[in-house]
Amino acid sequence: MKERIIKSALNLFWRYGIKSVTMDDIAKDLGISKRTIYQHYSDKEAILALVIQEEIKTQKNEMEKLDEQASNPIEQMMYASVQMRDTLSNMNPTLLYDLKKYYPAAWELFQNYKHEYIIKSIHDNLIKGIELGLYRPDIDVDVLSMLRVEQIVMAFDPTIFPARKFNMMHTQMQFLLHFLRGVLSEKGFEYYNTIKDKSAIEINTHEK
Amino acid sequence: MKERIIKSALNLFWRYGIKSVTMDDIAKDLGISKRTIYQHYSDKEAILALVIQEEIKTQKNEMEKLDEQASNPIEQMMYASVQMRDTLSNMNPTLLYDLKKYYPAAWELFQNYKHEYIIKSIHDNLIKGIELGLYRPDIDVDVLSMLRVEQIVMAFDPTIFPARKFNMMHTQMQFLLHFLRGVLSEKGFEYYNTIKDKSAIEINTHEK
Repeated sequence: MKERIIKSALNLFWRYGIKSVTMDDIAKDLGISKRTIYQHYSDKEAILALVIQEEIKTQKNEMEKLDEQASNPIEQMMYASVQMRDTLSNMNPTLLYDLKKYYPAAWELFQNYKHEYIIKSIHDNLIKGIELGLYRPDIDVDVLSMLRVEQIVMAFDPTIFPARKFNMMHTQMQFLLHFLRGVLSEKGFEYYNTIKDKSAIEINTHEK
Repeated sequence: MKERIIKSALNLFWRYGIKSVTMDDIAKDLGISKRTIYQHYSDKEAILALVIQEEIKTQKNEMEKLDEQASNPIEQMMYASVQMRDTLSNMNPTLLYDLKKYYPAAWELFQNYKHEYIIKSIHDNLIKGIELGLYRPDIDVDVLSMLRVEQIVMAFDPTIFPARKFNMMHTQMQFLLHFLRGVLSEKGFEYYNTIKDKSAIEINTHEK
């Protein structure tokens, strides 16, 4: 039952954001009583914390799988963005914003994940790309890995990219391709040109 | 006297941020009494509003001068960043952050300037670059002009780029060069390669 509650909450948060989902909604979704939920969890925030931990675990696993499949840092970055697209395509854009604004403890979990895992993973990607001569040697990996992660977060910010004007996944893909091109060396470009047509189709599909 | 007060306040804000500068400091700086200041301005916020309007006017003038000197959008973007470096090099990094946090009315003035002028200016630059074949035709100019202006703001954010770890001007220059490379077409690259050595030296000097 505990796992079913987390799974249901994840689905509901994903679709409707966090603020608008109540304990009643989760109970209804599972066809159980609210009391049953309260036997396992004291409140929505307790469920939210577990949902986020669960989602972070899933994303880490998927990223590790992709890293094994990618034959070089350029492919790795493109694969990661395809994964991001799949993960985010049906996510309600208010979710991250709800987190930041109304659930500081859960937001902190996400921030830790961002700092300890995502930034490190981008950082490693940049270092490896420089070593292989695919990225420019004169990029500052600390500055640019921070830029990349903040771009991902920025695309979710409705005060900067309001949903009525910007499609979030399209923005993310513009950011990714722009970021990648910005770090490529000449050798990297030659390689990128051989794979971009295939990948661009893959990445651009459904985006706008 | 009114102009002298604005000029003194601008210098003090620039050097020490806004929060820590008092009416007493401004009076001392000018060797006048605080009462003289109050004859002209009701409080620090009134001075601040004028300081910002004045600074925006100066920056607009300088940008327009540069735009006339630049022979193409790539040069224009590089000139603008050299100007930014000169303007910001002795600015206290807390200034923008002080504004946002403690002076919402003045922050609003800056936000308007950002939206009505800076974003439009980047937008025009991108359109012109695409028309001349120097930038890729597949960039989304709305998305990327927003990205560029938010990057400039982001480099000031001490929660993302703490001053003990990052040099603000170095971060800005990494952002600029990365942004520019990210939008270049192949033709743009060929041109960029002919000017970058000169410009890179110019841009990188004193940066770290």
